[in-house]
Amino acid sequence: MPTETILARRTRNMGASAIREILKVVSRPGMISLAGGIPAPESFPMDMMQEITERTIAQYGPAAFQYDLTEGFPPLREALTHYLAGKGLSATPNEVLVASGSQGVLDGLGKILISPGDHVALEAPTYLGALQAFAPYEPRYLEIATDDQGMLPDALETALARQPVKFIYMVPNFQNPTGRTLPAERRQAIADIIRRYDTLLVEDDPYGDLRYHGVPVAPIKALAPDHVVYLSTLSKVFAPGLRMGFCLAPEPVGRWLVLAKQGVDLHTSTFNQALATEYLTGGHLQRHLPRIIALYRPRQQALLGAMKRYFPGDFNWTVPEGGMFVWVRGPAGMDMQAVNRQAVARNTAFVPGTFFYARPGSGRETLRLNYTMADEPALDRAAAILGEVFSMARLEMEAPRRVG
Amino acid sequence: MPTETILARRTRNMGASAIREILKVVSRPGMISLAGGIPAPESFPMDMMQEITERTIAQYGPAAFQYDLTEGFPPLREALTHYLAGKGLSATPNEVLVASGSQGVLDGLGKILISPGDHVALEAPTYLGALQAFAPYEPRYLEIATDDQGMLPDALETALARQPVKFIYMVPNFQNPTGRTLPAERRQAIADIIRRYDTLLVEDDPYGDLRYHGVPVAPIKALAPDHVVYLSTLSKVFAPGLRMGFCLAPEPVGRWLVLAKQGVDLHTSTFNQALATEYLTGGHLQRHLPRIIALYRPRQQALLGAMKRYFPGDFNWTVPEGGMFVWVRGPAGMDMQAVNRQAVARNTAFVPGTFFYARPGSGRETLRLNYTMADEPALDRAAAILGEVFSMARLEMEAPRRVG
Repeated sequence: MPTETILARRTRNMGASAIREILKVVSRPGMISLAGGIPAPESFPMDMMQEITERTIAQYGPAAFQYDLTEGFPPLREALTHYLAGKGLSATPNEVLVASGSQGVLDGLGKILISPGDHVALEAPTYLGALQAFAPYEPRYLEIATDDQGMLPDALETALARQPVKFIYMVPNFQNPTGRTLPAERRQAIADIIRRYDTLLVEDDPYGDLRYHGVPVAPIKALAPDHVVYLSTLSKVFAPGLRMGFCLAPEPVGRWLVLAKQGVDLHTSTFNQALATEYLTGGHLQRHLPRIIALYRPRQQALLGAMKRYFPGDFNWTVPEGGMFVWVRGPAGMDMQAVNRQAVARNTAFVPGTFFYARPGSGRETLRLNYTMADEPALDRAAAILGEVFSMARLEMEAPRRVG
Repeated sequence: MPTETILARRTRNMGASAIREILKVVSRPGMISLAGGIPAPESFPMDMMQEITERTIAQYGPAAFQYDLTEGFPPLREALTHYLAGKGLSATPNEVLVASGSQGVLDGLGKILISPGDHVALEAPTYLGALQAFAPYEPRYLEIATDDQGMLPDALETALARQPVKFIYMVPNFQNPTGRTLPAERRQAIADIIRRYDTLLVEDDPYGDLRYHGVPVAPIKALAPDHVVYLSTLSKVFAPGLRMGFCLAPEPVGRWLVLAKQGVDLHTSTFNQALATEYLTGGHLQRHLPRIIALYRPRQQALLGAMKRYFPGDFNWTVPEGGMFVWVRGPAGMDMQAVNRQAVARNTAFVPGTFFYARPGSGRETLRLNYTMADEPALDRAAAILGEVFSMARLEMEAPRRVG
C-alpha cells in the first residue's frame, strides 16, 4: 500500500519516457553521447560565479533569501525588460513573469488552459519537455506539418479552420529537435493567422542567443503581441541548474499563470533570481555569451563536416545557424531505434527521432544529434562510427530483397 | 484577446485568495503585522552565507550549476537521511525526494492523486497553501473536527467509514494556523486508523524544528511508514527564498511524484540543493538552529504575556510549544473580518481565521496571530491595540441587545 489504484485519472497520461531510459544508458563510461540535450559544463561562467554570489549577497542581503512575489523578484523583472528589448520585445517589468525554468511556464500554461480533450497544435516533431508538461492536463495533439524551414503556415491555417485549438506551441529558433529556424516571412504569416483566428501561440525560445551564423529573426511576439506568450530561459546562457525561466504573456493569461504558480511553488528561488539579476546587469552575460558561442560553433562545424565525410549518400540533415542540435533523416524504412542499439554497442549514442512526435510511430527514420557535450575529436569519431552503423543498417535493409 | 473563455475548467477553482489582499495591505509603512506567516529575516544565517556559497562552489564546481536528477541532488538526498534520522525517520537516500519547497510536494500529490470530485480529508482549520495546491485538481474537501490537541481520531474514523478519501492532509506539529501539536496517543490512533482503512496520510511538518518548550513527538510516518507521505522544508531553519522542500513517500507514490515533477520544473535548483547540502553537513544547521529558537521564543512569550494582559476575558487561545502562530477564538458571533478592518485602521493586522477553513463561512470568530516578524515591544503594542479593538467590537455586538 498504497497501490496504483489511488492514482488520479490524469496520471495515466504521465508514463515514464523511453527517452529517459536511453539517456540512462548513455551515461555509461566510455560512451560518446550525442544523445543529450544539455549545455556543456565548460560553458558555465565558473570564473564569475564567486564574484556574482558575493555581489548578490552584499547587494540584497537577507532579501535574497526571503519569500518573494510569485510574479518574480522585482530587480530581475526590471533587468529582463532590457534583455528582452535586445530581442525586439518591449515590456514593462510588471509584464515579465519569472518561472522555475521555462518548464514552469509550460506546466502553468497547461494547467490554466487545457481541459481534458482540448486540442493543442504542435510542430511535428516537437520539444519533448512540452509534451511532458502538457500531458497531465489531458490534451489531444494536432500535429502541424513542417518542412526544412519549420511549420507550414498553410497547414496551420487548414487545421485551425477545421477545429479550434487552445493554443499553438512552437520553438521558432534552432528548434529542439531539428535545429530549424522559422524564417521572417513565415513568422509574419503565422502572426496574421493567429490574429485572424484569435488564437493563442506559445513561442518557446530557449536557444535564440546561441546563434553562430546569420542574423537574428524577430520573435512572433513582436508581430502579434496580444496573441503570443513568449517564454525563454537563462539555462543556455547562464546555468541550467539555476532553473531560471521567464515569460511575457498577454492578459488575462499572465494573471492566471501567477495564480497557478502560487499553488505550485509559491515563487522561484529568490537567491537564484538575484544571481540572475547580477548576471544580466553586471555585464557578465555580455562578456560571457561570446565565449559560449566560441565553444559551440567549432563543435557544430566539426560535427557537420564529419557527417558530410562519413554519412551515407542517401542521408540528409539540417544545417542550423545555431542552437544545440542537428536533425538527420535516413532512408525510408530504416528503424533508428534499432540502429541506435547498434550504435550504443559501439559506445556511441543518439536519440531516435520518433520520440519527438506526438503521434506514436512517426519519424522512425529520423534522429537527433547534439554537439554541445562532446569536443571536436570526439564528434568526429562519433560521426565516423555512426556512418559505419548506418551503412551496415542499410545493407541489412536491402539484404532480404537481394535474397528474395 | 485572449479572453477568459480560453481557460480550462479547473482554472475556475483557482481564484485570487482574499488573504493575499490582506497581506498586501499589511505591508503599508507603520503597520505592525501579526498577519504574515514568514520567518524573520534576522533568523537567516547571513553570517554563514558567504562561507556556504564559497564552499559549495569549491566542492561541486560546475556540477552545482548543471541539470540534475528530478529526484534530487544525490549529496542532498544523502544529507537529508541523517537529518530525518534525527526525527526518528529512517530512509535510504533513494527514498528521499527533493522538491521546490514543500509546496512542490503538495502540488505533485494533488496532480497524481486527485481526480475531479475525489475527497480529501483535512483538519478544520487547515493550511491555506495546501488548499491552493490541491484546488486546480478539483477535489471535494471533508473537514474533520479538531479540538485543542488537533484532529479527533474518532471523527476521522467516522468520516472514513462513511466514504473513501484519496488522502488525509495534516500538519501535526505547531500547525498553521492554530499552533497545535497532535499528541503521541492520537498519532498512534490515527496510524492505526489509516492502516485499518488502507488510506494515505500526508504529514506536512514545516515547523517541527521550531520547538521552544517540551519534547518532540515522533512523526506519524514512523508509526505507519507505508501509509504516510512525510514532507518538510528548510524554509524555517535555513532560508525560505531557496525553496527547498523534500518528502519521504511510499511506493508507488514516490515514483509518480517524480514523473509529475519532471513535467513541472525538471528538477529543483541544483545550486540551492548544493547550498542546502553544505548547510546540513557542514555543521551550520546545528550551530544556527539554537539562534533561531533564541530569537523566536521570547517573541512568543512576549505575545502570549501581552494577550493575557490585554485581551478580553471571554477570548481564549492556544499556547503552542513552538512554531510561528497563536490561534485565537473570540466570543460567538464576533466577525473577525470586520474586526480586522478596525485593527488595520489602527495600524495593526492579523488574519481572520475563516480563511483557513475549506468550507466558506466557518470560524468567523477566530483569528491567527504570527509572532516571528515583530520584536517584543512591537508585539506588546500590537496586543494592546488588539485588546482595545476586541473590547470595542464586543461592545458593538452587545449594543443592539441593550437598545432592544
